[in-house]
Amino acid sequence: MQKNIVLLPGDGIGPEVMKSAKAVLDAISKQFNHTFSYESHDIGGIAVDNHGSPLPPQTIDACKKADAVLLGAVGGPKWDQLPSHLRPERGLLGIRKELDLFANLRPVKGYAKLLHASPLKEEIINGSDLLIVRELTGGLYFGTPSERRDNGNSVVDTLTYTRHEIERIVDKGFKSAQLRRKVLTSVDKANVLESSKLWREVVEEKKADYPDVTVDHVLVDAAAMKLITNPSQFDVIVTENMFGDILSDEASVLTGSLGMLPSASLAENGVGLFEPAHGSAPDIAGLGIANPLAMILSSAFMLRHSFQLEEEANLIESAVEAVIDEGYHTADLQITNGNKVNTAEMTKLVVDYI
Amino acid sequence: MQKNIVLLPGDGIGPEVMKSAKAVLDAISKQFNHTFSYESHDIGGIAVDNHGSPLPPQTIDACKKADAVLLGAVGGPKWDQLPSHLRPERGLLGIRKELDLFANLRPVKGYAKLLHASPLKEEIINGSDLLIVRELTGGLYFGTPSERRDNGNSVVDTLTYTRHEIERIVDKGFKSAQLRRKVLTSVDKANVLESSKLWREVVEEKKADYPDVTVDHVLVDAAAMKLITNPSQFDVIVTENMFGDILSDEASVLTGSLGMLPSASLAENGVGLFEPAHGSAPDIAGLGIANPLAMILSSAFMLRHSFQLEEEANLIESAVEAVIDEGYHTADLQITNGNKVNTAEMTKLVVDYI
Ligand SMILES: CC(C)[C@H](C(=O)O)[C@@H](O)C(=O)O
Ligand SMILES: CC(C)[C@H](C(=O)O)[C@@H](O)C(=O)O
Repeated sequence: MQKNIVLLPGDGIGPEVMKSAKAVLDAISKQFNHTFSYESHDIGGIAVDNHGSPLPPQTIDACKKADAVLLGAVGGPKWDQLPSHLRPERGLLGIRKELDLFANLRPVKGYAKLLHASPLKEEIINGSDLLIVRELTGGLYFGTPSERRDNGNSVVDTLTYTRHEIERIVDKGFKSAQLRRKVLTSVDKANVLESSKLWREVVEEKKADYPDVTVDHVLVDAAAMKLITNPSQFDVIVTENMFGDILSDEASVLTGSLGMLPSASLAENGVGLFEPAHGSAPDIAGLGIANPLAMILSSAFMLRHSFQLEEEANLIESAVEAVIDEGYHTADLQITNGNKVNTAEMTKLVVDYI
Repeated sequence: MQKNIVLLPGDGIGPEVMKSAKAVLDAISKQFNHTFSYESHDIGGIAVDNHGSPLPPQTIDACKKADAVLLGAVGGPKWDQLPSHLRPERGLLGIRKELDLFANLRPVKGYAKLLHASPLKEEIINGSDLLIVRELTGGLYFGTPSERRDNGNSVVDTLTYTRHEIERIVDKGFKSAQLRRKVLTSVDKANVLESSKLWREVVEEKKADYPDVTVDHVLVDAAAMKLITNPSQFDVIVTENMFGDILSDEASVLTGSLGMLPSASLAENGVGLFEPAHGSAPDIAGLGIANPLAMILSSAFMLRHSFQLEEEANLIESAVEAVIDEGYHTADLQITNGNKVNTAEMTKLVVDYI
């Protein structure tokens, strides 16, 4: 298989963990006789520095032509005071919109050796394995008007969805559930929002197309509670953009190892983007100690979702599991009697397993 | 002191816990020589049954004339299938708007004997004592347009705030912090929402008026994480309506005893409304086993916030603490070697202490 991958290392620890993902992909391509070619482009703060924009046109072009995009992380204190159109996260929002990345998949799953670091009691977190399917290009994030009014004395943001936008993400939720334990939880605020009422109607309509999936509706406030009191009740959660932002970050800390969580952002027919759930961690950037595993697992997600290379994706995931099982960990994690390693060493361990 | 209190028992366990609160208030009035007169009115499902509306005009009138309002809980499966303007929670939203209850105060604090039931590890939840100040009459909840468009093929909700609405709740946040540990966390999504940018500006402007308070801005997704990983870092959190809805419910399960949490909803100069943070619990309604303590603590909140009866409020809070400390608990809680009691017995214990 011949594939062109655009790498967007971004800021902070982004470039370091990207190097790791590339090393792992190289090992995979050798092993399975694929040809992966790479092209690197700037996004976020580094793009502001080099091109005066967090999402330069050449980055957009390259991504649109690619077979898949890997993204490290964006942002850092250096760019925090810039006006909002130059902020690194504008790059992230921009590329989502440009590539129409409507579906953000965020799995949350613990590793036996790491679960001790969970803020939750063992009996609560044990057995949790959930996937949040977040709508990523609609809602409050992109609705207009979004502006000051009355000489700056009032302000408005707009939450809009088309029926089509809701249908495609709800379909993604059902399909994701079919590939897992077949339980879908749709999260909305249908007792208050008109958009949530339409959302709930669409879910009810779609039920018939997925008779093997059990569906439940939960209000967003109740979902925020249940994620903590009983996370293992969830299989797939599907929800709109802002609720998904909040709930997926909430869910990401439940296992105690945020540095292990990948994510996938998918389009209907176009290129997908894959990035770790963690941020750019400017405090440890350049030290060579960042945990590359979320980025490496994101590249496995790319192989699975964009290239249908299930076996290759599984091999990467098994490699990561094996390395953790053997007690190796980076500085962000702790394993009793384990071996603390740096970014390069961790990468080599995964590559060697492959 | 002579005060007129409107009681809105509502649905489910609402009437049972309201009876307890009234018993406790009677004990207080006897002890301190106050005259509290009560008037009961319907709200929620019971109001739909009796008057065809979840918020009948006579209920609104009575509340507007009262010195304070106590509310039990609304909602239940009986009314779940009604069209949305007849749903019990419309009563709740309606009374907030009618009384201009812009500030919702939700404290989260554990009791030593009950903390074992927290889903969080002891070392994480220990020492947590926070207050969420939620804006309650603006934002997505009440913005217009909120409607279907394009023949039902799209939908819009509107998030609006006036500068005045933001200022008054931010002031409430600062003032609440001054009465506590003087640390204010303002939660917004200023990297995406224009309304959050204005919110952040207002907080920055107000800083000068409260030089004794330390202020920090946290994005709502990060706040959802930090509430779990390190809840004790928070003193007062101030945020807009929808974020406050999600975060205050998330926070309410951290201590493991939701049945102990009161809330206050306050107007600028008008009457305040006080209700437990828990819901109507239709599954145990009528069994006489509901935990009345959140309702009783809500009545203490009323004495403090509406009548400035600090000593009386403190006495109720000490009574509740003492009763729990002695090992008494209702069926929703557990205390090792404790004494399980029903609603009436628990109420008597509190009254006897007073
Ligand atoms: C950086 C920010 C705009 C972004 C979002 O809110 O979508 C981030 O929080 C995320 O979840 O990827
Ligand atoms: C019932 C519902 C409309 C309400 C809200 O969202 O405000 C409730 O969740 C609350 O927090 O009091």
